Amino acid sequence: MIGPRYTSLVQSLPASVPFVGPETQERARGEAFRARLGANESVFGPSPKAKAAIAEAVKEAWMYGDPESYDLRAALAAHHGVGMENIVVGEGIDGLLGYLVRLLVKPGDAVVTSDGAYPTFNYHVAGFGGELHKVPYADDHEDPLSLIVKAHETRAKLLYFANPDNPMGSWHDAATVQHLINSAPEGCLLVLDEAYCDSAPADAIPPLDASDTRVIRMRTFSKAYGLAGMRVGYAIAEAGLITAFNKIRNHFGMSRVSQAAALAALEDQDYLRETVTRIANSRDQIGRIARDNGLTPLPSATNFVAIDCGRDGDFARSVLQGLVARGIFVRMPFTSPQDRCIRVSCGRDEDLAAFAECLPAALDEARG
Amino acid sequence: MIGPRYTSLVQSLPASVPFVGPETQERARGEAFRARLGANESVFGPSPKAKAAIAEAVKEAWMYGDPESYDLRAALAAHHGVGMENIVVGEGIDGLLGYLVRLLVKPGDAVVTSDGAYPTFNYHVAGFGGELHKVPYADDHEDPLSLIVKAHETRAKLLYFANPDNPMGSWHDAATVQHLINSAPEGCLLVLDEAYCDSAPADAIPPLDASDTRVIRMRTFSKAYGLAGMRVGYAIAEAGLITAFNKIRNHFGMSRVSQAAALAALEDQDYLRETVTRIANSRDQIGRIARDNGLTPLPSATNFVAIDCGRDGDFARSVLQGLVARGIFVRMPFTSPQDRCIRVSCGRDEDLAAFAECLPAALDEARG
Repeated sequence: MIGPRYTSLVQSLPASVPFVGPETQERARGEAFRARLGANESVFGPSPKAKAAIAEAVKEAWMYGDPESYDLRAALAAHHGVGMENIVVGEGIDGLLGYLVRLLVKPGDAVVTSDGAYPTFNYHVAGFGGELHKVPYADDHEDPLSLIVKAHETRAKLLYFANPDNPMGSWHDAATVQHLINSAPEGCLLVLDEAYCDSAPADAIPPLDASDTRVIRMRTFSKAYGLAGMRVGYAIAEAGLITAFNKIRNHFGMSRVSQAAALAALEDQDYLRETVTRIANSRDQIGRIARDNGLTPLPSATNFVAIDCGRDGDFARSVLQGLVARGIFVRMPFTSPQDRCIRVSCGRDEDLAAFAECLPAALDEARG
Repeated sequence: MIGPRYTSLVQSLPASVPFVGPETQERARGEAFRARLGANESVFGPSPKAKAAIAEAVKEAWMYGDPESYDLRAALAAHHGVGMENIVVGEGIDGLLGYLVRLLVKPGDAVVTSDGAYPTFNYHVAGFGGELHKVPYADDHEDPLSLIVKAHETRAKLLYFANPDNPMGSWHDAATVQHLINSAPEGCLLVLDEAYCDSAPADAIPPLDASDTRVIRMRTFSKAYGLAGMRVGYAIAEAGLITAFNKIRNHFGMSRVSQAAALAALEDQDYLRETVTRIANSRDQIGRIARDNGLTPLPSATNFVAIDCGRDGDFARSVLQGLVARGIFVRMPFTSPQDRCIRVSCGRDEDLAAFAECLPAALDEARG
């Protein structure tokens, strides 16, 4: 038996599972985490209206979702002041990034990102055989100038930029981001991942221009909207690019219940504002806990805070292990020198109390 | 501006949207369909326990789904008597077919299917540049012998076979299917799409052998389980092939609420049996309606019935148009001579009453 004949590209990909969820860790621990603060989800949950929409949509769970996601796209278009033809809805930003890479990247094509930025983007680039060129962070920020230089040097087809950034929580102002859009080389598409835009200062987000062929902007209901479990992301771009997604996407990939949930969440902007306030308060609280323990919280425009543990990556990894061992699910950056930090998602008072309770012992242990 | 630089493969793909949902037709009509009998969904709906699981899982909608779909895979493994390592869960069979084609097919690779079989499979093959070789149906059945011959001739990497079949509803017995598995050429993987297996006679489904590297079997919660709107499919195959999916799949692509719904649906086998009885009764009812109108219902092992309208494709298309114009959503085969039929999904009494009410006028109109 020779078995299935994989493509040579697939044969070259690592067989190890690249993503480990908190549930896997919980199964290994034999018990649930006390506080789930590692995946930048919104423990504040979605709008009660979104919950009600899910309960209502149960009646329609037997029907496939509308392959056009028409109602949701119409509402998003009105919300953002762009055309429906400028919006594609997909199975989270992760799913849309996969489609986007597939549209543009064939084996050997150059792609630029920051060293330590979103692993799932890198996973998709590798999965389609792209050649990834990484630029270091500068002072814990993605570095627009170096990214642009690298995109020119490599004749990159795609340039990934998250604003605000994950895993550092840092951000650039709108003028800088617009300058980045304007400076992308001809034929290089800027992937502007704005998953965390809802919790960012207004002056960090450049205005939408859906006629601009140089940029695609990715948004999600998984962060401030509190619907990570429903898997709804969307992208805003020039109509020609949006149309291209229709050539390859899984047209019946969207859950009907998720479409209804996202629509209801979008319509409850009051709740979103409340959540953003909760996020801001929680960031302050995480900052206080960090400082109380002699650590330095980094400024954040996201729903998490990177905490500088003050030493090297090995030390921060020990702190993280100590927290995880005590039932606090957190994560941390992969790349030096950002890996001197741990990354703590915003939480409710009880979540942060558990974190505050466990941090001193984790630090003591790490200090040996 | 030269804009995004698509791969040459993507540039070669048709820009037209290949899938039109009933919602698109409803928007064009300006009103909802009276009866939704075109997408082989289960209007009988999911188990009340699945509905309750969705309502309960709302509390967890803020959390990403477990990327391993561990609980669901464990339950499926126990249900089918295979190992967890033999199961991958994905965003419907459609999503899994896309991943599978990507694993095996590079531009120019040969793939074999039946002419008129599942369009979404063909869409994925085209989307990865595969060369599709089609074999005609024989007597409204997929033709195992001709498929095998074609797979040998073309050195195909993939051979698609649905049992029971869509769009004809026909089926082969287990011995024939097992013979097909045994006869696949070395290095040709048989994609055995068993979306409709739950409503098939027991002797149509060969036993599972998860050590067999020659076949992958696709199952879904979208048909008899009544959860099309939740987007949960799975595949059963030899562990090496299942592992390969982990190299490319969207690890966080599954809705957490959908995982919970599918698990609860699986656990309610009594409800599944009730649904299968309802499906059988509904098939009989559709058959009676067809015969009452001088038409011939074809035998079906699925949750739909292909009705032979007795003339050519143009005639059947007119009948279909007449039904759609009267608010009855049905579909039909694309390929001659199967396109002499319309395809009517099983429904409740009220759905079929609406169909029965509209069919005579649609036929009169088509007869001119």
